[in-house]
Amino acid sequence: MSVTAARGFVAAGVHCGVKPADPDLSLVATATGEAVPAAAVFTANKMTAAPVLTSRAHLEATGGRAAAVVLNSGNANAATGGPGRQHAEQMCAGVATELGRAADEVLVCSTGLIGIPLPIDAILSGIPAVVAARSAEGGVDAAEAIRTTDTFRKEAAVTRGGLTVGGMAKGAAMLAPHMATMLAVLTTDADVDHATLADHLRAGVDRSFNRLVVDGCMSTNDTVIILASGVAGAPDDPRDLELAIAEVCESLASQMARDAEGATKVVRVEVRGAASDEDADRGARAIATSQLTKCSWYGCDPYWGRVASDLGSAGIAFDPDRLSVSYGGVVVAREGVSVAHDEDAVATHMADRDLSIVADLGLGDGTAHVLTNDLTHAYVDENMGTS
Amino acid sequence: MSVTAARGFVAAGVHCGVKPADPDLSLVATATGEAVPAAAVFTANKMTAAPVLTSRAHLEATGGRAAAVVLNSGNANAATGGPGRQHAEQMCAGVATELGRAADEVLVCSTGLIGIPLPIDAILSGIPAVVAARSAEGGVDAAEAIRTTDTFRKEAAVTRGGLTVGGMAKGAAMLAPHMATMLAVLTTDADVDHATLADHLRAGVDRSFNRLVVDGCMSTNDTVIILASGVAGAPDDPRDLELAIAEVCESLASQMARDAEGATKVVRVEVRGAASDEDADRGARAIATSQLTKCSWYGCDPYWGRVASDLGSAGIAFDPDRLSVSYGGVVVAREGVSVAHDEDAVATHMADRDLSIVADLGLGDGTAHVLTNDLTHAYVDENMGTS
Repeated sequence: MSVTAARGFVAAGVHCGVKPADPDLSLVATATGEAVPAAAVFTANKMTAAPVLTSRAHLEATGGRAAAVVLNSGNANAATGGPGRQHAEQMCAGVATELGRAADEVLVCSTGLIGIPLPIDAILSGIPAVVAARSAEGGVDAAEAIRTTDTFRKEAAVTRGGLTVGGMAKGAAMLAPHMATMLAVLTTDADVDHATLADHLRAGVDRSFNRLVVDGCMSTNDTVIILASGVAGAPDDPRDLELAIAEVCESLASQMARDAEGATKVVRVEVRGAASDEDADRGARAIATSQLTKCSWYGCDPYWGRVASDLGSAGIAFDPDRLSVSYGGVVVAREGVSVAHDEDAVATHMADRDLSIVADLGLGDGTAHVLTNDLTHAYVDENMGTS
Repeated sequence: MSVTAARGFVAAGVHCGVKPADPDLSLVATATGEAVPAAAVFTANKMTAAPVLTSRAHLEATGGRAAAVVLNSGNANAATGGPGRQHAEQMCAGVATELGRAADEVLVCSTGLIGIPLPIDAILSGIPAVVAARSAEGGVDAAEAIRTTDTFRKEAAVTRGGLTVGGMAKGAAMLAPHMATMLAVLTTDADVDHATLADHLRAGVDRSFNRLVVDGCMSTNDTVIILASGVAGAPDDPRDLELAIAEVCESLASQMARDAEGATKVVRVEVRGAASDEDADRGARAIATSQLTKCSWYGCDPYWGRVASDLGSAGIAFDPDRLSVSYGGVVVAREGVSVAHDEDAVATHMADRDLSIVADLGLGDGTAHVLTNDLTHAYVDENMGTS
């Protein structure tokens, strides 16, 4: 159930001093210390954090191989300019020295506050300890040390056809199109080349993390990395690996939705009957990023008029007279007007933690869905200040 | 200081029963009862409310003339299908009968909840009373009767070169690109044709209401209407009318920003140095619609890293190493990194009700600004439920 579930990997998590007391430095490495095939998906935000620049460059330099990933929480090393880029390189070099590897065989992730210089001395002093602590039982500690405002550790593992994929992640706010303030490290014991691994990871990310929308903000640091030890040999059926990677991504994404900052609800928004899948996706994201609509969910209010208004301003093909909307499977509006329905059933559904909203545009075959949350007092509390 | 400040207009506001007790039915009409040149700007939301469809059709039918505008609060008559469109026509016909005019010489606006049938009987029973109550002193009552969650009436008047422009408005949440949940009725005593009036109104709206962003949601009902009585004759200088219209629009928009739902701050966000004005506009709107950034303002937190992250994901030309950000004129970041600055001065500014944030992208000459607000507990409270 962790990043060390797949054979051939070790991990650790320690406190080094970026945060006052909690674990804040994490390592995932191959058991042998050798570099293995690796792949990653990074944020599309142009305010790219230093560790993203460094990890991307390292993967390019090695042709898609890595021996370890080092991660810190408490500081995102983003908006930190040239010194930040030096610090990210120093983190990799520090781990590489301990492992007896080249610096570009180490990848790096940071998460936490933006725009504040990384306390690099604390991190460098902690690296020998985190490397020394690595073990096949270290997955839990590693997952613990990447938490920021997460209220619980996020771990997953899937075994299919004799191969295992494990993973850990941190999420919270800023879960948006093209990933989130989220980091995930996956491992597999399958024997697979870099290109295949990269394809499988991209496919898994597209159907999981990229369908999560918390507040529409895109993070500077989003990174998903996978390493493949090869210990279990090549998959008998190539689909097993692809599916296992997707399932781990989906599990981690679902855990993130359940732990989004200040949320009281996990809301699945589906748009059907759109002129195209692209239109359906834009419509679903428009609903999921609407402050007004998100507040109405917090109030357990099936206010379909807001959903209609979000769709009408989403820049997609739309005809008010063809719209129907349902909450928890109960249709509350058809052909653009309210219809008599079982109000008790809707009220019961709105009081649940998990909501399901379907808007059918009545125009075509386009469908899409996203997972999102409500907008709450606690979200405002968590994001009022930097502390 | 009101919609009856310009000569040749009368107005009234009464209670008809859409709301439990408060005034909810409003009228602005020419003093003579004759139709005069008129122009309007409407929402771009495709979930277009019935009164918008009706007013647009009436202006087209008359070639840009109107004798009166009837407005109700408490129910937006949006997402109400065919019956809603009939109700909007009935409101116009009711007023036209009382005034002895054709129905298409009357325009109509509604504001309030979406997706709930308009209580048309209450409105029709109130129309004789609101028409009978009309007077040159009725501007205040008319402005009062269009309030929804507004905490104060919004009125303005400007006199230039012997001609006057007056106006009233209602705002609150959903102030977004291409207008807001906002209604405004302007009047002028200038003698001006429909085409010129329409040009002036469009220009005034572009530099005022369309630069307001509260929560990024676009209303189904947004409407700005102007009527010109001609009593003061043609402007000596044609610029006087254009300026006076723009100034009234700006005053009303500023009052809306100051009264946005649950806001504790009015924030002017300016983006300079963009590759184009369009990029600057997209960047400023990205900052103004960022939930994370809006929460940080509520917390008086000059967290420039969030502003940088918003700009990096805005889909515009952006180089982190060229970005500078200032709060209240104090530069806190330059070339993409934090710089030493007068922290007391910034803290004092962040505690103000009015904030000024400037992000300079260092790439070109593009500039734009928007007015927006913070995201607060009270915003969540006001939008949790329909009541």
